[in-house]
Amino acid sequence: MSEDLNHLRQRLAEFADARDWQPYHTPKNLASALSVEASELLEIFQWLTPEESARVMESPESARRVEDEVADVLAYLLQFCEVLGVDPLKALTAKIERNERRFPTP
Amino acid sequence: MSEDLNHLRQRLAEFADARDWQPYHTPKNLASALSVEASELLEIFQWLTPEESARVMESPESARRVEDEVADVLAYLLQFCEVLGVDPLKALTAKIERNERRFPTP
Amino acid sequence: MSEDLNHLRQRLAEFADARDWQPYHTPKNLASALSVEASELLEIFQWLTPEESARVMESPESARRVEDEVADVLAYLLQFCEVLGVDPLKALTAKIERNERRFPTP
Amino acid sequence: MSEDLNHLRQRLAEFADARDWQPYHTPKNLASALSVEASELLEIFQWLTPEESARVMESPESARRVEDEVADVLAYLLQFCEVLGVDPLKALTAKIERNERRFPTP
Repeated sequence: MSEDLNHLRQRLAEFADARDWQPYHTPKNLASALSVEASELLEIFQWLTPEESARVMESPESARRVEDEVADVLAYLLQFCEVLGVDPLKALTAKIERNERRFPTP
Repeated sequence: MSEDLNHLRQRLAEFADARDWQPYHTPKNLASALSVEASELLEIFQWLTPEESARVMESPESARRVEDEVADVLAYLLQFCEVLGVDPLKALTAKIERNERRFPTP
Repeated sequence: MSEDLNHLRQRLAEFADARDWQPYHTPKNLASALSVEASELLEIFQWLTPEESARVMESPESARRVEDEVADVLAYLLQFCEVLGVDPLKALTAKIERNERRFPTP
Repeated sequence: MSEDLNHLRQRLAEFADARDWQPYHTPKNLASALSVEASELLEIFQWLTPEESARVMESPESARRVEDEVADVLAYLLQFCEVLGVDPLKALTAKIERNERRFPTP
């Protein structure tokens, strides 16, 4: 059973507060960290063929790496949103609605 | 009122299906796209001082760019997780628990 | 006929000086810009198959984009090296020699 | 004394050939690898203040990391250019000339 997004965002904020990490958590630094973690996720796939990339969860070792990097990307995305007061679900809902108008189905 | 994450993941999957985008949505391509969007978010901050980066939401134009890139990052993260069957909330919950053990508070 | 790397590094430094861009050119900002430009190069390839990616120079429009992003990546790499006093050719020569020892041919 | 760029490009190509790495060296994969290495360079700076980032070469350990990542970025940039027949110095020369017209000095 997974927790919901807002609860995770709050746990991450408390985690950083308890360790006095706020001075490091400028929006610029968090955007850098998010980008670095997204690249670490990409690194898993960089030499794979499209077919090999679709089987990446079959190996427990690479499945674990994928889950670990997904967690890091989401963690920095939530911390970035927290410091700037952005609601990521609201931003995505608005984007999907714009895209449904921009790319109508045939 | 924002929708919940699972509902957004489902809407994104239906959106891609309706446009026959699945062949492009290999895990490798989605990891590339996620990394590219995270860099577009970083681009907003690349020449700003830490102080300027904290005020980025004060300008409606840069606030709109930030929200737009946050939406893109989250969209590709959810689509990546969808094609590989990864639960991002569960992955993050597990990571937070590991980090609470790794970095105990003083 | 192309110019040599040191001359280009010097032209880039004079270009930035003439426009008073040095305050923006911290090593951190230049590393961000380099990473953003490398992602813009990747963006050209993100939805292509491996085979399509090998034919990217056949279209004048995508060839022009590739050359433009290669130029941006090299420009920020040289500017980064300039502000930190790193010799990129010396660093690469040392790396190749280490790799020749690490990955001996069969 | 460092070698020149063309010689390094040739050494990298021979290195990859001798290890049968060409099938992995599609333009798409090399663009991914370049982007991943640029992020590893950025990672060194992600939590540093602008002032700390300017002193990164004072520590032998972080100086070594910087040089190592610069070498990786340049290596993948040269290999990318090699497989697509792009001349990076010519591309940068053309870009500088365009920029001198776009951003005239006061």
